[in-house]
Amino acid sequence: MKKFLNSVDTILSESLAGFASAHSDLVTLDPSGKFIRRNELKPGKVALISGGGSGHEPLHGGFVGFGMLDAACPGQVFTSPTPDQMMEAVAAVDSGAGALFIVKNYEGDVMNFDMGAEMAEGDVLQVITNDDIAVKDSTYTTGRRGVAGTLVVEKVLGAAAEQGLDLAALKALGDEVNGNARSFGVALTSCTVPAAGKPTFDIGEQDMEFGVGIHGEPGRRRDKMRPADDIAEEICGAIIEDMGAASGKPSLLFVNGFGGTPSMELYLMYNSARRIFEQHGITIARSLVGSYVTSLDMAGCSITLVGLDDKTLSYWDAPVHTPGLRWGM
Amino acid sequence: MKKFLNSVDTILSESLAGFASAHSDLVTLDPSGKFIRRNELKPGKVALISGGGSGHEPLHGGFVGFGMLDAACPGQVFTSPTPDQMMEAVAAVDSGAGALFIVKNYEGDVMNFDMGAEMAEGDVLQVITNDDIAVKDSTYTTGRRGVAGTLVVEKVLGAAAEQGLDLAALKALGDEVNGNARSFGVALTSCTVPAAGKPTFDIGEQDMEFGVGIHGEPGRRRDKMRPADDIAEEICGAIIEDMGAASGKPSLLFVNGFGGTPSMELYLMYNSARRIFEQHGITIARSLVGSYVTSLDMAGCSITLVGLDDKTLSYWDAPVHTPGLRWGM
Repeated sequence: MKKFLNSVDTILSESLAGFASAHSDLVTLDPSGKFIRRNELKPGKVALISGGGSGHEPLHGGFVGFGMLDAACPGQVFTSPTPDQMMEAVAAVDSGAGALFIVKNYEGDVMNFDMGAEMAEGDVLQVITNDDIAVKDSTYTTGRRGVAGTLVVEKVLGAAAEQGLDLAALKALGDEVNGNARSFGVALTSCTVPAAGKPTFDIGEQDMEFGVGIHGEPGRRRDKMRPADDIAEEICGAIIEDMGAASGKPSLLFVNGFGGTPSMELYLMYNSARRIFEQHGITIARSLVGSYVTSLDMAGCSITLVGLDDKTLSYWDAPVHTPGLRWGM
Repeated sequence: MKKFLNSVDTILSESLAGFASAHSDLVTLDPSGKFIRRNELKPGKVALISGGGSGHEPLHGGFVGFGMLDAACPGQVFTSPTPDQMMEAVAAVDSGAGALFIVKNYEGDVMNFDMGAEMAEGDVLQVITNDDIAVKDSTYTTGRRGVAGTLVVEKVLGAAAEQGLDLAALKALGDEVNGNARSFGVALTSCTVPAAGKPTFDIGEQDMEFGVGIHGEPGRRRDKMRPADDIAEEICGAIIEDMGAASGKPSLLFVNGFGGTPSMELYLMYNSARRIFEQHGITIARSLVGSYVTSLDMAGCSITLVGLDDKTLSYWDAPVHTPGLRWGM
């Protein structure tokens, strides 16, 4: 394993310190190290809190700021944050309107966010994201996994919270956006967890993991590498099939890199996916291409399609100012 | 080699098509495929044009837009664009105030941009960037290589051009910013050029290339992996030594990923570099952390320090709206 680190025990704390220092105009790392919080809270706004295992940056800490999250709780690499992290984050950023947790569907995360919600003062509701259509259940998951679509839920809810939606309405909107989001990923290499010191899985020189999860969990099958168009055809086909009657909405197409795949390949996949979706009558109204929901250094990408309506489009377009996503201000 | 592609012959054109389609609100790929141009030109503004071999994305095409470049000419992967590309880009975006080329110091680029300038109608001046202090000469270079500092030159000049500086003043400002920029990179793995199909160089499981260029060119030496703090100490020390009497200015610290290194490690390196520079009395006034000047899928990073004054700080802070860099609007 070759990584820029001093010790596997301190990689997270040193990285968080650097992150907080580079973005001190926007966010603060709580002295406890338990959460990253937005510097300027908006009184009366519902607090949005997410988190999960580290290694998916910029998700979630990179999305703390105006128009997105109020706090993010980073666990160790690919390890759920503990309930006290979420409890203390609520205490720090809930200004009285309640808190909404945005939680990717993994057993550890769901359990610990549940406990955090019980321990927290004030009203807490939760949105569980499960946009990964590749598999029904997975290594760490009952039901579908929460992956790149989580970014879209965080962005839309962030804008809606800034505009004054209450806790119950935000919970309903989050469930709606998650329900309209479908993702599917493919890995060309494994990631390497620093504490493990070796790749999470072995994969042949000509193979890919089709339907991989963002921790390197198995997908639908191990497959031989194929041309990008073939890969995109199968992924987009699976997404369209899963959408069923919901197809036809103007949509956000989000091609997400897992960390080790360069921009040139992501735009090539975008080009292919867009053509395929458009051939199926889907209007690509908005686009996002980049490495936003990563899996450490894994080479690979995922394709996410989210059906939008006028309301969610306007929330997507609303100004956002976070370390990882910024527009309109 | 495992990459998302259909054919090595079409990877660039397909990727550019995807890029232009994802960012059609900002940029257009000329039908010839020879350059990416800004949709909305500002009459009377000096045209800023850059380019170079592809594989360094988002540099340069990702920096076309308001407050940065008017056009970028993409060569094949790690291959200079041809003079006709620059000539036609000038014809498309020079609205009468002349054009400034921003060229990274590689022999092929310098030669072809020179010829492009001769062939172009209207006034053309050039800024050659050579911020890489790691080596004196290199494989493709007489003198220092132009690397990540180029982004800073493009951003500062972009803002200054929007504010009405004339061609001669922009040329002088570009030379000044380049002269205040110092970069140094280290690679943990090689990149793989699609047309070659195999890594550009071999590197051992415990080795790093210290002082690497952004095409995988050799640096100062092959070295054993060391803790991040040791690597940062030597890089920052080399930068400080090179600065000499210029040290003490408020500075921009830019930690740049080469494509295969995750955000967690980049922020850890930032944390280390910032501490070291501050110990040497350097004030870090601005920060940028991310994979902006890449080398395909190479794992590694570079550290860039740019001394700034009130004028260049205000140009850095000025609004920018491009696919790859955006703030203030």
